[in-house]
Amino acid sequence: MKQQQTAILKLIAPDQKGIVLKIADFLYNRGANIIHADQHRDDGKNLFFMRVEWDLKEFSLPLAHFHHAFAPIADAFCMRWQLSDGRDMQNIAIFVSKESHCLADLLYQIQSSSMRCQVSAIMANHEDALPLANFYQIPFYYFPITRDNQTLQEEKELTLLQELNVKTIVLARYMRILSPQFVARYPEQIINIHHSFLPAFSGANPYQQAHERGVKLIGATSHYVTAILDNGPIIEQDVIRISHRDQVRDLKQKGKDLEKTVLSRALRWHLEDRILCYDNKTVIFD
Amino acid sequence: MKQQQTAILKLIAPDQKGIVLKIADFLYNRGANIIHADQHRDDGKNLFFMRVEWDLKEFSLPLAHFHHAFAPIADAFCMRWQLSDGRDMQNIAIFVSKESHCLADLLYQIQSSSMRCQVSAIMANHEDALPLANFYQIPFYYFPITRDNQTLQEEKELTLLQELNVKTIVLARYMRILSPQFVARYPEQIINIHHSFLPAFSGANPYQQAHERGVKLIGATSHYVTAILDNGPIIEQDVIRISHRDQVRDLKQKGKDLEKTVLSRALRWHLEDRILCYDNKTVIFD
Amino acid sequence: MKQQQTAILKLIAPDQKGIVLKIADFLYNRGANIIHADQHRDDGKNLFFMRVEWDLKEFSLPLAHFHHAFAPIADAFCMRWQLSDGRDMQNIAIFVSKESHCLADLLYQIQSSSMRCQVSAIMANHEDALPLANFYQIPFYYFPITRDNQTLQEEKELTLLQELNVKTIVLARYMRILSPQFVARYPEQIINIHHSFLPAFSGANPYQQAHERGVKLIGATSHYVTAILDNGPIIEQDVIRISHRDQVRDLKQKGKDLEKTVLSRALRWHLEDRILCYDNKTVIFD
Amino acid sequence: MKQQQTAILKLIAPDQKGIVLKIADFLYNRGANIIHADQHRDDGKNLFFMRVEWDLKEFSLPLAHFHHAFAPIADAFCMRWQLSDGRDMQNIAIFVSKESHCLADLLYQIQSSSMRCQVSAIMANHEDALPLANFYQIPFYYFPITRDNQTLQEEKELTLLQELNVKTIVLARYMRILSPQFVARYPEQIINIHHSFLPAFSGANPYQQAHERGVKLIGATSHYVTAILDNGPIIEQDVIRISHRDQVRDLKQKGKDLEKTVLSRALRWHLEDRILCYDNKTVIFD
Repeated sequence: MKQQQTAILKLIAPDQKGIVLKIADFLYNRGANIIHADQHRDDGKNLFFMRVEWDLKEFSLPLAHFHHAFAPIADAFCMRWQLSDGRDMQNIAIFVSKESHCLADLLYQIQSSSMRCQVSAIMANHEDALPLANFYQIPFYYFPITRDNQTLQEEKELTLLQELNVKTIVLARYMRILSPQFVARYPEQIINIHHSFLPAFSGANPYQQAHERGVKLIGATSHYVTAILDNGPIIEQDVIRISHRDQVRDLKQKGKDLEKTVLSRALRWHLEDRILCYDNKTVIFD
Repeated sequence: MKQQQTAILKLIAPDQKGIVLKIADFLYNRGANIIHADQHRDDGKNLFFMRVEWDLKEFSLPLAHFHHAFAPIADAFCMRWQLSDGRDMQNIAIFVSKESHCLADLLYQIQSSSMRCQVSAIMANHEDALPLANFYQIPFYYFPITRDNQTLQEEKELTLLQELNVKTIVLARYMRILSPQFVARYPEQIINIHHSFLPAFSGANPYQQAHERGVKLIGATSHYVTAILDNGPIIEQDVIRISHRDQVRDLKQKGKDLEKTVLSRALRWHLEDRILCYDNKTVIFD
Repeated sequence: MKQQQTAILKLIAPDQKGIVLKIADFLYNRGANIIHADQHRDDGKNLFFMRVEWDLKEFSLPLAHFHHAFAPIADAFCMRWQLSDGRDMQNIAIFVSKESHCLADLLYQIQSSSMRCQVSAIMANHEDALPLANFYQIPFYYFPITRDNQTLQEEKELTLLQELNVKTIVLARYMRILSPQFVARYPEQIINIHHSFLPAFSGANPYQQAHERGVKLIGATSHYVTAILDNGPIIEQDVIRISHRDQVRDLKQKGKDLEKTVLSRALRWHLEDRILCYDNKTVIFD
Repeated sequence: MKQQQTAILKLIAPDQKGIVLKIADFLYNRGANIIHADQHRDDGKNLFFMRVEWDLKEFSLPLAHFHHAFAPIADAFCMRWQLSDGRDMQNIAIFVSKESHCLADLLYQIQSSSMRCQVSAIMANHEDALPLANFYQIPFYYFPITRDNQTLQEEKELTLLQELNVKTIVLARYMRILSPQFVARYPEQIINIHHSFLPAFSGANPYQQAHERGVKLIGATSHYVTAILDNGPIIEQDVIRISHRDQVRDLKQKGKDLEKTVLSRALRWHLEDRILCYDNKTVIFD
């Protein structure tokens, strides 16, 4: 975690003179000490993006009243905005199938306190990850899914997620495609890891596809899930070099380190409120 | 250039016991001192690949007689093979359009003697590169190409290439698509640079496509040209990190260093006879 | 070039509430439309850094009067600051010895208008680069330097640099060590490329050193020159993978692409006023 | 694991004509089907290196007799050589201190059967890793070490390692320096991960050192341990980009993924007998 006693404001607005001034003024007058601030303008779309993080120690406005106090400015500039409390520990759920390398890595990192969340549930369509869940003392829910029972099972999952007050869902090599209805319930809150350098090799068996095409680098892509498969806003990507010596099983092996690294980076940025989505892309405030 | 007084044998054959032995025996009995040897087996296809490079100093067989002497072994093992003389300086032609960053880099590297070739011709559908050609004293041929005259112009180009005894054609950001007839005349001898991480963003305006998709890395791919656009065997790829701050013009700028680096690596390996093609892929013996 | 009709303000100050507000207020009241703004705080040192770039179209304050108008704010916050006009084309000099790959790349990029400068002089202690200078029509000055004449020659160089109003000096694989007196005249204005991943392998023959140590990646480092050899603030670094197959000559060959890429990135950021130095380090506003 | 029913021969010898032939002949005559073969020559040292891996299915020579049968060839060519059986599962011990990210990653990978070894012991100078050891059912030995008891404790460790028939020791962020006596007992069998891009920032607190120097990339290095600290043959290195925004705690966080990835790659190659050491460097047969 970068900072603990802070608040973070993220916003998008049509670009207009005076936005920075208004926000700086608003914060200064309430005693905020700005720790990080980052602005960006998309020239083509004429949009303005900002993330500002400030120390809460001398901030005179209780965060519960922030919405009321800030709304006039937000409205005046037609902002889409979000405030978050850097002290909050978000509830997340991790979905997993048989392969557990991403899950194991996330659980280790979360347990060693290096991410701002707690894992409320592991939800799985296979039971392979149960021992890991037990070790880290995370409730494990087994939802075997077939073509026939998917709707029913997803309803149960959604009910459970709501009961657990889950804010973010991580698909840690979860090999089922979520229904559009499910996805619609968690917009920009479901993070997937796809084992290719998207948009290349979307869909099934990307390492097989990469091997057949004879690429010289393989990649992994973490993205928000949308209704269209492997097409949501990309959060992070990385690649490693391979050679003709690598068979498909070698690509799978080499890709695992990449997958877990890319996914954990993406989740970390998400939890630190560093990501803004627009136009099916992401702005990452680093 | 890695070695000068050497010969290089490359071969593909169905995998079978005894291939390495036969070749080692053949070379040893003629006084070859092996400098590099590299073998590879494609398990799935049951194919065997080999590149062997030896010092010619004490090699008793004149290379002109190699074919005759080696043919019985090659036939017995059903090899597809190629011998080259490491002392040969191959003639190449570079095709270019308006943008000349790849051309400038190649000419500099070739002139400073770090590649095993001479440039017999620069062929261009725009005149922008003429000063560079003059500086490096390379004959410059201007072939403006329209939809209507392409067949005729390509015939002229082919005639000229033949007269100049050109063995390899480099498309250094040449923005016309060669006809299948042209391509068929130089199989595995035309090297292109595509400004994306293929197979993502093939076709026109890859940086524009990359920007729209919101990828976090952009790439460049050098490949042999086949009749299908951007689909030939990939020789080399590389990527660089970008961010949301980069507009399309920034991607173009950042991509230039990548393009020239990837293309010059691919050409170097090609000229050093390090590449074997099979199954629309490459084996790179490094 | 990213922007042309813009002004850029860079500053360092002890961290204090209200800095952002004061600057935003100052700019807004004079009609500035902020295009990019980036802030950073060094927690350990309690320092605040900022770069802000704004459109000059509706900016009511002539830049010539900026200093006078802004000084009270700067003084109040104890700022070290610098204003630059994004339309200015800075004069630079490139120093070179025998190897010209970095020079050739820089000249190509500058001539194709992708950097905000003009080359006023190439200064060399060998004559090898003369043809390149002639091709790009850059005045070439030959200053052969020995242990005995270094002081004298540097004085001549300094006189010439001053006459030419040179603001930035690029050492493009210049193999002489500049005297501390020379360096002192151009603080944070001399950019060097060192062919290793500093601080590893400083000094002479870094590729030889890298080969002997058996590293698996080689690097290049661009940095500002200070009185201590290879020890100035690092601007940019990058690496490429090598293997045991690479002899020293191969490292030199592979390193060339790296050197020119790293150097041109560093120069570009310098010319776009993206760099702030403090504590023998750099902040790069990207 | 790449192959299971295979044998692997690694060798170093003064370069001499006929080595490849002799080995190919020896193997062919005993029915070996060569799966991988890789040769390398160090020009400067005039040394020849080879790794050959063959299928044991039709190999007529029992491996127990290999030494006797091959010794005459090895002697004739003055080889230093090693045979290993690809079916063997080596015993390893992992040494750890407080931080367990590398340990957790290794245990996960070993348990999921992707490495050719079993962990006979975790040896630690802190008790933090005990729960992980228990989860993976690995015997955990606690050896608290002070300046005064180091000799005694190391003797106990050595006794235990011998009893457990441990062949390879992995220092997974083990923060004590082993005595030269200890190291001498396991030459080229102790693998360390150092959290910097060696030779830069050897010794204590490399991330602190990197931060102070202001580098733009941080690295990790896995190497064999020798009597000289952080100076043994480098097996693998990798880097990631950082920026001025990263404080020391961020470097530590970002470095963790790098450390575990680099260490697990190095161990994998070691276990697959892909590494040859000479001249304080490694040859990695990939």
